[in-house]
Amino acid sequence: MSSEKRVCLAYSGGLDTSTILKWLILECFLADLGQEEDFAAVEKKALALGAERMVIDNLQQEFVDELIFRGIQCNAIYEDRYLLGTSLARPVIARAQVKAAHKYNCKILSHGCTGKGNEYVLAECHRLYQSLSVIAPWRMPTFFNRFAGRQDLLNFAAENNIPVSSTPKAPWSQDDNLAHCSYESGILEKPDMPAPKDVWTRTVDPLEAPDVPTKFSVTFREGIPVKLEVEGGETVTGSLELFKALNDIAGRNGVGRIDIVESRFVSLSSLSYSCANNLTASSVSSPGAATTPPAMTVLRLAHIDIEGMTLDSKVKSIMAWIGNEWSQCLYNGMYFSPERELLENSIIFSQKHVHGTVNMMVYKGAAHVLSRSAPESNLYSEEQASMDTLEGFSPEDTSGFIAIQAIRLEKYGAAKIQQGEPPGSRLVKAALP
Amino acid sequence: MSSEKRVCLAYSGGLDTSTILKWLILECFLADLGQEEDFAAVEKKALALGAERMVIDNLQQEFVDELIFRGIQCNAIYEDRYLLGTSLARPVIARAQVKAAHKYNCKILSHGCTGKGNEYVLAECHRLYQSLSVIAPWRMPTFFNRFAGRQDLLNFAAENNIPVSSTPKAPWSQDDNLAHCSYESGILEKPDMPAPKDVWTRTVDPLEAPDVPTKFSVTFREGIPVKLEVEGGETVTGSLELFKALNDIAGRNGVGRIDIVESRFVSLSSLSYSCANNLTASSVSSPGAATTPPAMTVLRLAHIDIEGMTLDSKVKSIMAWIGNEWSQCLYNGMYFSPERELLENSIIFSQKHVHGTVNMMVYKGAAHVLSRSAPESNLYSEEQASMDTLEGFSPEDTSGFIAIQAIRLEKYGAAKIQQGEPPGSRLVKAALP
Amino acid sequence: MSSEKRVCLAYSGGLDTSTILKWLILECFLADLGQEEDFAAVEKKALALGAERMVIDNLQQEFVDELIFRGIQCNAIYEDRYLLGTSLARPVIARAQVKAAHKYNCKILSHGCTGKGNEYVLAECHRLYQSLSVIAPWRMPTFFNRFAGRQDLLNFAAENNIPVSSTPKAPWSQDDNLAHCSYESGILEKPDMPAPKDVWTRTVDPLEAPDVPTKFSVTFREGIPVKLEVEGGETVTGSLELFKALNDIAGRNGVGRIDIVESRFVSLSSLSYSCANNLTASSVSSPGAATTPPAMTVLRLAHIDIEGMTLDSKVKSIMAWIGNEWSQCLYNGMYFSPERELLENSIIFSQKHVHGTVNMMVYKGAAHVLSRSAPESNLYSEEQASMDTLEGFSPEDTSGFIAIQAIRLEKYGAAKIQQGEPPGSRLVKAALP
Amino acid sequence: MSSEKRVCLAYSGGLDTSTILKWLILECFLADLGQEEDFAAVEKKALALGAERMVIDNLQQEFVDELIFRGIQCNAIYEDRYLLGTSLARPVIARAQVKAAHKYNCKILSHGCTGKGNEYVLAECHRLYQSLSVIAPWRMPTFFNRFAGRQDLLNFAAENNIPVSSTPKAPWSQDDNLAHCSYESGILEKPDMPAPKDVWTRTVDPLEAPDVPTKFSVTFREGIPVKLEVEGGETVTGSLELFKALNDIAGRNGVGRIDIVESRFVSLSSLSYSCANNLTASSVSSPGAATTPPAMTVLRLAHIDIEGMTLDSKVKSIMAWIGNEWSQCLYNGMYFSPERELLENSIIFSQKHVHGTVNMMVYKGAAHVLSRSAPESNLYSEEQASMDTLEGFSPEDTSGFIAIQAIRLEKYGAAKIQQGEPPGSRLVKAALP
Repeated sequence: MSSEKRVCLAYSGGLDTSTILKWLILECFLADLGQEEDFAAVEKKALALGAERMVIDNLQQEFVDELIFRGIQCNAIYEDRYLLGTSLARPVIARAQVKAAHKYNCKILSHGCTGKGNEYVLAECHRLYQSLSVIAPWRMPTFFNRFAGRQDLLNFAAENNIPVSSTPKAPWSQDDNLAHCSYESGILEKPDMPAPKDVWTRTVDPLEAPDVPTKFSVTFREGIPVKLEVEGGETVTGSLELFKALNDIAGRNGVGRIDIVESRFVSLSSLSYSCANNLTASSVSSPGAATTPPAMTVLRLAHIDIEGMTLDSKVKSIMAWIGNEWSQCLYNGMYFSPERELLENSIIFSQKHVHGTVNMMVYKGAAHVLSRSAPESNLYSEEQASMDTLEGFSPEDTSGFIAIQAIRLEKYGAAKIQQGEPPGSRLVKAALP
Repeated sequence: MSSEKRVCLAYSGGLDTSTILKWLILECFLADLGQEEDFAAVEKKALALGAERMVIDNLQQEFVDELIFRGIQCNAIYEDRYLLGTSLARPVIARAQVKAAHKYNCKILSHGCTGKGNEYVLAECHRLYQSLSVIAPWRMPTFFNRFAGRQDLLNFAAENNIPVSSTPKAPWSQDDNLAHCSYESGILEKPDMPAPKDVWTRTVDPLEAPDVPTKFSVTFREGIPVKLEVEGGETVTGSLELFKALNDIAGRNGVGRIDIVESRFVSLSSLSYSCANNLTASSVSSPGAATTPPAMTVLRLAHIDIEGMTLDSKVKSIMAWIGNEWSQCLYNGMYFSPERELLENSIIFSQKHVHGTVNMMVYKGAAHVLSRSAPESNLYSEEQASMDTLEGFSPEDTSGFIAIQAIRLEKYGAAKIQQGEPPGSRLVKAALP
Repeated sequence: MSSEKRVCLAYSGGLDTSTILKWLILECFLADLGQEEDFAAVEKKALALGAERMVIDNLQQEFVDELIFRGIQCNAIYEDRYLLGTSLARPVIARAQVKAAHKYNCKILSHGCTGKGNEYVLAECHRLYQSLSVIAPWRMPTFFNRFAGRQDLLNFAAENNIPVSSTPKAPWSQDDNLAHCSYESGILEKPDMPAPKDVWTRTVDPLEAPDVPTKFSVTFREGIPVKLEVEGGETVTGSLELFKALNDIAGRNGVGRIDIVESRFVSLSSLSYSCANNLTASSVSSPGAATTPPAMTVLRLAHIDIEGMTLDSKVKSIMAWIGNEWSQCLYNGMYFSPERELLENSIIFSQKHVHGTVNMMVYKGAAHVLSRSAPESNLYSEEQASMDTLEGFSPEDTSGFIAIQAIRLEKYGAAKIQQGEPPGSRLVKAALP
Repeated sequence: MSSEKRVCLAYSGGLDTSTILKWLILECFLADLGQEEDFAAVEKKALALGAERMVIDNLQQEFVDELIFRGIQCNAIYEDRYLLGTSLARPVIARAQVKAAHKYNCKILSHGCTGKGNEYVLAECHRLYQSLSVIAPWRMPTFFNRFAGRQDLLNFAAENNIPVSSTPKAPWSQDDNLAHCSYESGILEKPDMPAPKDVWTRTVDPLEAPDVPTKFSVTFREGIPVKLEVEGGETVTGSLELFKALNDIAGRNGVGRIDIVESRFVSLSSLSYSCANNLTASSVSSPGAATTPPAMTVLRLAHIDIEGMTLDSKVKSIMAWIGNEWSQCLYNGMYFSPERELLENSIIFSQKHVHGTVNMMVYKGAAHVLSRSAPESNLYSEEQASMDTLEGFSPEDTSGFIAIQAIRLEKYGAAKIQQGEPPGSRLVKAALP
């Protein structure tokens, strides 16, 4: 077949991409980002359904080094809850799918994402190379009218001998990778119902976590975790190994379960980010209600703590804004953009001296910072912090500082009194003689 | 004595304000913000040391209604960790001390704060009324040269029969109020040492918390907590009562222990905010290392969750900025300022429709959101969030949305390729044919 | 005809809406926002082309009061150049068109905007009422394939006896209203060519402006212009009259010509905002290169100046951010949004005490502030500003202020020296002994 | 004299530093930043008054390259009016004074700044090297009580044979350098009085400017002006020469006069920035009311224009925030800080592709952009901007874009209608059937 018509489908083995596979003729692609998956079974299924080839790429190392740890460096978070597990994975997947398309002579990319997610990444990649186009069946009337609901997919699967893994016992879909596992659809769409106990993977129930806490330390160089030392246990230094070990430790202790409702870029307030965020989405992509990022939770806390010892306060304040912009950029699928490069240039610069070790404990669903040290930093000085030794600045300096600061407040207060409304609300008013 | 020379001292019963009390001749003032304190003993001590009067004001209700719940409404936090327990208390104390000074004919205010904290509030209050002045002995050479270290204070106390409560067994000071208790000085100044087990009050050790979680729901009206319903237990509705009950529930389950290093406005990076932030600071005001805000921790999480159901995404993003400004304003002691009024005007406006109920669980040191409902909000729609019912917008719309968004990325990518640096780093580069 | 099929077209009398008019069967609507237009001729043309009715609404008063002066209150500007003349007009037009549709029993709205502009406003209005739909011919293949270029329109016009006003002598289109007139397409699309001399309306050429400057004062109450006093001339107080008079004065003196290239929301960098921003766009909507907002230019400058006398510095800094958000909100067509209401709530609150008079001069293309007074404000104090009277604060206070500020810089400098890179670049380095 | 007692005074030849010179025993230092000054006369006067040495450093080149052009790259401005002429000069002066102190074996720096300005720079420099201290006579009671007002200085000058240059004819002081000249004190402190005609230097009165405009083009590489081509005239390429030539051209045409009231960091709202900002301040440092930055005005406008052709819209929006932070950092005297380095790292990165040429005209007080070209940029595409060629994206895409954007507005509108308050205010309300 000429490359003009060759399609590279992001294939997960799930119901919808299997349906698409039957519907098209395909090379198939699946990224290995550390999800729990029987990759051999996926390949077998793809080939059985008629795929010409099943490409499976292990992208775990670059996922941790280029996306996850960049997120840690800028304390990335979205709407104060979501640690961006799906958003971090998408650029890595998209990049590798484009690479696979090139390698296997495809001019068309495809995926099982619906219209509810933020799929720019793929579109961008295609456009970047200006020689690929995208087929998104869930946005094509011929496809979505044919398969109006999940039942139509199931019927089609039955007719075409597509094995269906989403059994009635687990009627939700999930997006699983090293950063997190998220769950959506089915019961999870009811925001007033707790997630069922058996939905969670990657974390044990805090109620069933060990009765003894696990203590460990994380060491940072330039804001990057470089060493994990577990009390009475192993020392891990490779980035991927470290991240996996922390996932294991935190997950075993029930750390990282989050139940969220979230605004999506396309302006729906939904339970969790859309599965469609994930280019290898394996199901009908209903929004879900749960996410478990165990290592992310621990590392974000540790990184914020070590910045307290190593970053100037004003720099911290500027970087909070930069980190928020980076998080929104990633969430909105804008990884391959000039603003992302601009923001990362600042992030990396800011971390030049973020070196130190944070001692922590995880226990029954919570992560705690116990202490920390940053011997190369002079920001925190025990002596200067202590009242017992007042050398270095004069207490009188503070009087001057306060007096200057107070000038504008004095003026403001005088104006308010003149207007009959003393500042600080009714209670101050009552206090007036 | 003429009012010109009458001093109103913010008195805590501790070593330093007792020293000041002996040093001056005074009316004494102490705010009751819910701290654990033997108020009768403080009064007795003050009078024994020569105070003319000991004024003790219960300010708990206004503390919760005007400061703590405003902080909850804007998800207030400082440097991603500190819930502002001391900063919230100061304006209430300062306002009441000014009121007391007026009532008892004092023209001078005094307090035991050192030069390391942010004490503008008091200075402001004084200036607002333009008839009060401030004596801050810790910033006066005649005082701080006389008492250069803690030992000088202890010597003076011994000489003057001042009872000393900071025994060697608890060599740290604390700032206690309804919002939190913070601890500083002594061992706490060593950032690389965990806080000793016996430092913590208001929370039990997570390792010793009950083996059964406590479940409850918090109901919000206009972003304000108005009802607490404990599973199998009480229902609480008054704001102060609700806050105290939550402090109790969360504290019993070990929720709210935070060990922090923090940048202070005066530009030192210190362990925790200075005790000097607290106008009734009871000790030599060394910076500390720990804070326990149990109810604050729970309510902040609950409020963020209910905003997920009730606030438009763009409004949420604007309010994140406003909330950050408010937090910095309070932290910097700028409560009696025009910017605080401007910011609160926005906060209150934004919360008009933040109604709903959040179901939660606290267990061995962690607070978890289980589910939530907001029946008056139309932001979250189960139907719209679901893929099974696609009415209301067409999947094709997404294609257009993506295509438009991609235009600038396409241009950018084309430029980068022209320059020999495809976006998305070395890996994309490697992908090029 | 049943209301289900009745269309309300935003009609300008221009080539494209005339084509649409022939193409559909219509009620026609035109907003009078102060543009130079022969309204009777437009009506005659519409009826001649088969419109059932031509509705012309004078919306000038609400345009000035609700949009233009809100923009002045927050110093609205987009990308440091564009005063939002088209963006301010759109919500007023959309609102009135919806009103007209209701009145004349139409269920469908239509307009001549292309796909390049930001037309959400109309879509929103329609959706707000949930009973209107929109026909945008320029986005419909049956229309835009039929009329692929301007020549097709001209041919259709010739065939259908549509009079064409865009003669070869003026081969650009314009969007004219009280706030500005903008020009686009034709020669204006060449960014490296100056706009031709005869493109400009509303302003005379600065080179041909009077040789004597015009002096006047503008008085604000709550940040709103309430009085214009021209030296040796009239005094104007009504908002619409004042704005028109200032347009005249500034325009006569050549003030307000801007030649810009601008990023549009839909992500094209274009010369100027798209004419398509304007719902009554009269032409093929090529982007242009010029805009003339004479009164806006003068009032923005005056308002910034009077805020210097009446707003606290921190409030000013917060309002700069709010004003930028408002400008982006309007530019992106998000007027009927919750964020716009939130932002305006702050804007109005901030202006409570912005009262005063600014004395100005316009002369040959420039507006100058000469002086100002704000007798009700205590922010500026001649005495406090002067060094000759130092009462009110002590110069020593400044030493303390500086000393405190310097602590973090000192720490930073010490660290840099230790690292062998003294702050302040190579030159400081060279200065080291 | 041992170095412990050697003082390096920033000396301008004016009344106050001359008084200080008599008061102390000194090395004197004066920075040549392009101000109009008789340097030989200053040296003569200093030596006559007893200075051991008069050091005069020409810092013009580094002033333009490191400070002024960095400000141009980020479109620096303070409170929408002030182009930071004094703030840009201070770090250069302070750095050189420290260098001079080292060279001539001084351990003490001194200057004539009062307590009203932002003099951290000097303090910082001193602290950076940890071996210098600062004497600021205007903040020392022994000095400022001795010289309570200008008359005391004049008396002292008469008694000590100090020649006084501020004659009754020009009763204001000025801070002059390449970036601007600012004027303060005397009549300038009255905000409701225009600046007297004879106050202005560096610009001619717009009313007396040439009757023929001057046209020229400015070429940028990486956001830095690298070439000035004057129509019918010279071509200038060196940075300092270019800046001086532009100062001349703009000044001759009356461009750059600004009359401002400004908030200072120390919280006074004053007429203009304090002269005390200038470390070589030559007078009693009353705040003033006028500033003339001719070349700055022209270059800022040109740079904003060329960014319109070369910067992505989102990058522009991020850089607007960064530029504002940089401006505040400089204004507050925080040049030698970690945040300044962080911000400049972003500024430089963002300008990598800001190449192009802007054609301009100056005429009787106003600067106008006429056209521009940026051949290396692909951001602006004449074809894509034009409606006549619609290739590259489909108009239907816009419908999808609008539909998606409208979802949240639709939800919001529906909620408002339910609450009886349709969005868009009373007028929409009235429109409801």
